[in-house]
Amino acid sequence: MQALQWDGKELQLNTVPVPVPDSGEVLVRLTKAGICNTDLEILRGYYPFQGTLGHEFVGVVEQAEDDTLVGKRIVSDINSSCHQCAMCDAGNPHHCINRTALGIKGSDGAFAEFLTTPSANLVMVPDTVSDDMAVFAEPLAAALEIQEQVNFPAGVKIAVVGDGKLGLLITLSLIQAGYDVTLVGHHPERTERLGMTTLKFCSTAPERKFPVVIEATGSSSGFTDALNITSPLGTLVLKSTYEAPLNFNPAPLVVNEITLVGSRCGPMDKAVARMASGAIDPTGLIEATYPLEKSLSAVEQANVKGTLKILLTMP
Amino acid sequence: MQALQWDGKELQLNTVPVPVPDSGEVLVRLTKAGICNTDLEILRGYYPFQGTLGHEFVGVVEQAEDDTLVGKRIVSDINSSCHQCAMCDAGNPHHCINRTALGIKGSDGAFAEFLTTPSANLVMVPDTVSDDMAVFAEPLAAALEIQEQVNFPAGVKIAVVGDGKLGLLITLSLIQAGYDVTLVGHHPERTERLGMTTLKFCSTAPERKFPVVIEATGSSSGFTDALNITSPLGTLVLKSTYEAPLNFNPAPLVVNEITLVGSRCGPMDKAVARMASGAIDPTGLIEATYPLEKSLSAVEQANVKGTLKILLTMP
Repeated sequence: MQALQWDGKELQLNTVPVPVPDSGEVLVRLTKAGICNTDLEILRGYYPFQGTLGHEFVGVVEQAEDDTLVGKRIVSDINSSCHQCAMCDAGNPHHCINRTALGIKGSDGAFAEFLTTPSANLVMVPDTVSDDMAVFAEPLAAALEIQEQVNFPAGVKIAVVGDGKLGLLITLSLIQAGYDVTLVGHHPERTERLGMTTLKFCSTAPERKFPVVIEATGSSSGFTDALNITSPLGTLVLKSTYEAPLNFNPAPLVVNEITLVGSRCGPMDKAVARMASGAIDPTGLIEATYPLEKSLSAVEQANVKGTLKILLTMP
Repeated sequence: MQALQWDGKELQLNTVPVPVPDSGEVLVRLTKAGICNTDLEILRGYYPFQGTLGHEFVGVVEQAEDDTLVGKRIVSDINSSCHQCAMCDAGNPHHCINRTALGIKGSDGAFAEFLTTPSANLVMVPDTVSDDMAVFAEPLAAALEIQEQVNFPAGVKIAVVGDGKLGLLITLSLIQAGYDVTLVGHHPERTERLGMTTLKFCSTAPERKFPVVIEATGSSSGFTDALNITSPLGTLVLKSTYEAPLNFNPAPLVVNEITLVGSRCGPMDKAVARMASGAIDPTGLIEATYPLEKSLSAVEQANVKGTLKILLTMP
């Protein structure tokens, strides 16, 4: 099969054997995959991963120990846990000390014709969720994780700083949940594209402060903006990955007793359910779709600043 | 009266009028005061304050609308609130938008013979608490604030990074509350001086991780050590003020979904109560005591790296 692989120096579309599922795993024939900033950061050397990239995907089960799974459209949690370490024991398999993550850590990912993943990680995709939607299950789950971690009071005013792909997904998820959201960004046209009509949009950090702020820019200046608009005793959620060290004046955080919450992967099942019910439709984020054989060009476009979601389709 | 004053350029012991209390305020004759790192940071230009320095003190009420207060030994909350803004309305007067803070913001402080403070801010000092103890009420309250903010599970293992004045007070307060504390620092002799026999001491960041970590070094490298020893889903409390911008790789914070809690001033009444009961005795932190007239030399010694608490006594 074809697989887009990174060897630490070069990105190449290689011909490799179809992977063989281990015990407890299924073989998935991939349908579509999405390029994420984390993929681009791996290529820039910020993560030590080598192998087949890609962790946003939808596919069909090709081979499984449980026959009833074969032929099912699925997405999959990207984290595989050992179920034996202290974090797993404490009910936090996403923080398993020995975890692997598809296309990120210790496990080949989704920019290929097939991948293997534990059957326990599968989430079924209902017919009402198209492939173009389902490919957003992983990043939408990451957006929804914020609501899992922080106990927002009803009606609280929330600011999202950053209108890139992740900032927009977070904003969509918060608006759908009924929150009063202000998005600080540079691309008001993107909010229209996603049908977010109830949103307040600011092109610079507003004067007022918010009890809850989500930082989704991935830059120190964006972080500083976000910190400065967080109310005393407020909560600032750090959702981005950062390419460079974070550099900021921590005095407002200490003096105003702000709580900063780091946030990563989230509940895939809830992401699929929100899309299945029609509550959230992220497909307005799609900028272009390339066949796997043109995946090098796809990555090139994804690397252009300001590009929204680039998808790959598999043969 | 004599007052140690900072005009933004120079520190001088000036002769100034005894302050006149406003309505609702008392006049306090100061007995002792402590030099805090925040005072030194004001002198280095990190805060815009000008006037009489000092916010750690004990004194005796000299003049008050309520006669029964006169002659009482007191400490005082350093924050004065407007009781009218949104933060005050919400029951958070320490985060009053219009607040002043003795010797830090908009209000003359305690390196003088007298100061004025709202009678509502007074905390009575019982006879069992000496002046040398009472002068620690403000920084001990700041240390206790951590237990007000974070809901520690019983028996949780806590690491404190930094064995300066604040780190040691935090450690004392946590040990007294029965927690299993590991102190990461460079001065094991200081823990003996404070009678902390149940403590674990490490001179470098330990290999193991802790569900709760307190960062009290005030440096980016100390912060990075603290972040690296915080368990996934753990809590890192940021207690220091920082002279320089904080610079660190935020990936562990995001990936491990760590909560970072900024922490400032705390409950003065609880600080006094813990000392009154004999539970906490911070007087082992005192390195030297100077008369107010030698306060310039006192500040000079306080500025020497590694110096513990320097006190001033008033005439």
